[in-house]
Amino acid sequence: MSLQSELETLATFSDAPAPAVTRVVYSEPDRRARDYLKSLCRNAGLSMREDAVGNIFARRHGSDPTLPAVGTGSHIDAIPNAGAYDGTVGVLGGLEAIRILQRVGMCPRRSIELVIFCAEEPTRFGIGCFGSRLLAGALDASASMQLRDKDGRTLDDWRTAAGFHGDMAQVRLPAGYYSGFVELHIEQGPLLEQAGIPLGIVTAIAAPASLRLWIEGEGGHAGAVLMPQRRDAFCAAAEIVLAEETAAKATGACDTVATAGVCDVFPGAINSIPSRVRLELDVRDIDEARRDSVLAAIDRACAEVAARRGVTVRKETINSDPPAQCDSLVVDALCLAADRRGLGFQKMVSRAYHDSLFMSRIAPTAMLFIPCRGGVSHRPDEYAAPEDIASGAQVLADAIALLADH
Amino acid sequence: MSLQSELETLATFSDAPAPAVTRVVYSEPDRRARDYLKSLCRNAGLSMREDAVGNIFARRHGSDPTLPAVGTGSHIDAIPNAGAYDGTVGVLGGLEAIRILQRVGMCPRRSIELVIFCAEEPTRFGIGCFGSRLLAGALDASASMQLRDKDGRTLDDWRTAAGFHGDMAQVRLPAGYYSGFVELHIEQGPLLEQAGIPLGIVTAIAAPASLRLWIEGEGGHAGAVLMPQRRDAFCAAAEIVLAEETAAKATGACDTVATAGVCDVFPGAINSIPSRVRLELDVRDIDEARRDSVLAAIDRACAEVAARRGVTVRKETINSDPPAQCDSLVVDALCLAADRRGLGFQKMVSRAYHDSLFMSRIAPTAMLFIPCRGGVSHRPDEYAAPEDIASGAQVLADAIALLADH
Repeated sequence: MSLQSELETLATFSDAPAPAVTRVVYSEPDRRARDYLKSLCRNAGLSMREDAVGNIFARRHGSDPTLPAVGTGSHIDAIPNAGAYDGTVGVLGGLEAIRILQRVGMCPRRSIELVIFCAEEPTRFGIGCFGSRLLAGALDASASMQLRDKDGRTLDDWRTAAGFHGDMAQVRLPAGYYSGFVELHIEQGPLLEQAGIPLGIVTAIAAPASLRLWIEGEGGHAGAVLMPQRRDAFCAAAEIVLAEETAAKATGACDTVATAGVCDVFPGAINSIPSRVRLELDVRDIDEARRDSVLAAIDRACAEVAARRGVTVRKETINSDPPAQCDSLVVDALCLAADRRGLGFQKMVSRAYHDSLFMSRIAPTAMLFIPCRGGVSHRPDEYAAPEDIASGAQVLADAIALLADH
Repeated sequence: MSLQSELETLATFSDAPAPAVTRVVYSEPDRRARDYLKSLCRNAGLSMREDAVGNIFARRHGSDPTLPAVGTGSHIDAIPNAGAYDGTVGVLGGLEAIRILQRVGMCPRRSIELVIFCAEEPTRFGIGCFGSRLLAGALDASASMQLRDKDGRTLDDWRTAAGFHGDMAQVRLPAGYYSGFVELHIEQGPLLEQAGIPLGIVTAIAAPASLRLWIEGEGGHAGAVLMPQRRDAFCAAAEIVLAEETAAKATGACDTVATAGVCDVFPGAINSIPSRVRLELDVRDIDEARRDSVLAAIDRACAEVAARRGVTVRKETINSDPPAQCDSLVVDALCLAADRRGLGFQKMVSRAYHDSLFMSRIAPTAMLFIPCRGGVSHRPDEYAAPEDIASGAQVLADAIALLADH
């Protein structure tokens, strides 16, 4: 099976009809995708382990297995109605990189380990990069046991149902576990395609923050309660959403982005005034202070709207992470590898965040981007060309070889 | 069993924990509530029939059964997380009125018929007063077969599963079926309670309209798509919701009300830009032209927002009904009955709409309101006092007696 046909097979494990991919962590498609990937890793002769939440590690032993390994990998979970390339290119491309080195008979000193991170997407538990946060110690085991899905079902319920029973405290990786980490990924933006350049080498990853707002007003019959008496939670939410958008645009920096992607209106009947709304907001910037200025503007809007409309707004910060600077050792290995293959690249920042944001806390880390059509991601029409994916896997293999003999 | 304990029993047929009542048409609690009411009607010696959608008719024959009957009744379905009094007071109060006349040995010339209307609430199919629209010919059988719930399941699927198989074309009542119709209902507004008056006699019912808007923008990754490139369907929806609110307030008339009670955001992930939103809007006014001015303002806002944000807005008018003037014969019977019992009343309009809006198209119709605490309805804390419910049933009985001998 070629890398390309493996990507196509992986896309069939989905709760949405093709071309859409919906693969939420611990769902049936997620479990079937894991089984498929483990069979591919076994066929490649890799040693495997899974931790207590379902991060998968597949290792090719080096000539000196006592040395810290070189890591590569990404995720396979997909948000509802997503595409076939986000994360999966880094997982199957990482496996392909290991197979490339095997095919040419290279056996570097360090072991090479493919990581399939559990739950990079925040769909189930509201927090992104769940698996890599735990690995890096950015989320501790006890805090993770507080996580619940929107129906109140706990992480422990979910992982147990999916067959993961181990000690949560053992998930965190020991210091010095990896000597370097590289993640291959589609750009999820338009820059490489627009510039006609096949590779991006990531030097920094933007600082993400996400909030959950509970807006509580007063319900009632849509016919009977007069307008001046209303405390409509959804009208209040609408103002907050627009205030978030205005604040992100007002920084004047193209790297500031803000989104309201989740809105649940309660009770959700056409003839009933909304009494309660749950909003989930996402704010990112390469510049942490500028991102925090948007968060502050949202806080001010919440306070003003609450006072004026007589509603209450409760805020829960899901995450607010600093940006990551990539490691020059890994960046240089990627640049050298691309140069040797005669492939053009540009250094760039990632506004999307990735498991590498957390891996960078425990290992020298960088990322390798390939173009995706129209910069489109998290949509069924997400697409990366087979030749770009192949180039990415080749340069990834070359860079891993450099790092594994370092 | 007293009327009060019957109301309490009826409230137990619910998909939500007490005190909330959720009883959507054709659900299991709806079916159990129907069975309960049919047993009460049988115990009262009434003749029963159900039509092809599940409107229930329970008749006490008059001394001249060939004459058009006097009708009374209301609905038992309840929106999600509603209370125990909306509709049910008119159903069990109507049954109690018939039993009051039986207890005092009155046998009027005309038959008296209790109607339990099917699906007054728009929860399942998006359209309010489904049963009474069909009875009045305001919705024809073929149009009703196009109705679907939000998952695409048809009316026919639902009614068949609930055990209703008859010919839809037979649901419409023949001309002259009722000589008069009276509906007892909680006010669902604060006026009677504030004035300390036990009864309201409704002289007009406000004109309701409801819309479904499909707003289509462009999705994408919340980190990667820059703000100027976005066509965020939810930000567009937020502007439309606020424009609706502004337009309703701008008429300057307290009788104009407008609500956005339903908002579904697609794909609904925190890190994905909303590509599509479904909004459901409700606009009402006693003055039809003034209501239509709000609908026109919503249309203008949709066009302006669509052009500016590069989204599309598709509108489906769920219903747009004229207001109803109540019939003086029925209003006068209610006034006389209240006077004879020494109970104060005020004439008023209903901003909420009811099955009587459609019954008024085929029979002389009016409504009798009783106070509800705080004007609250469509909420678990909806409440009407037992003495007000008893007064309502008594005056309803007296008015029916007058009409049935007319």
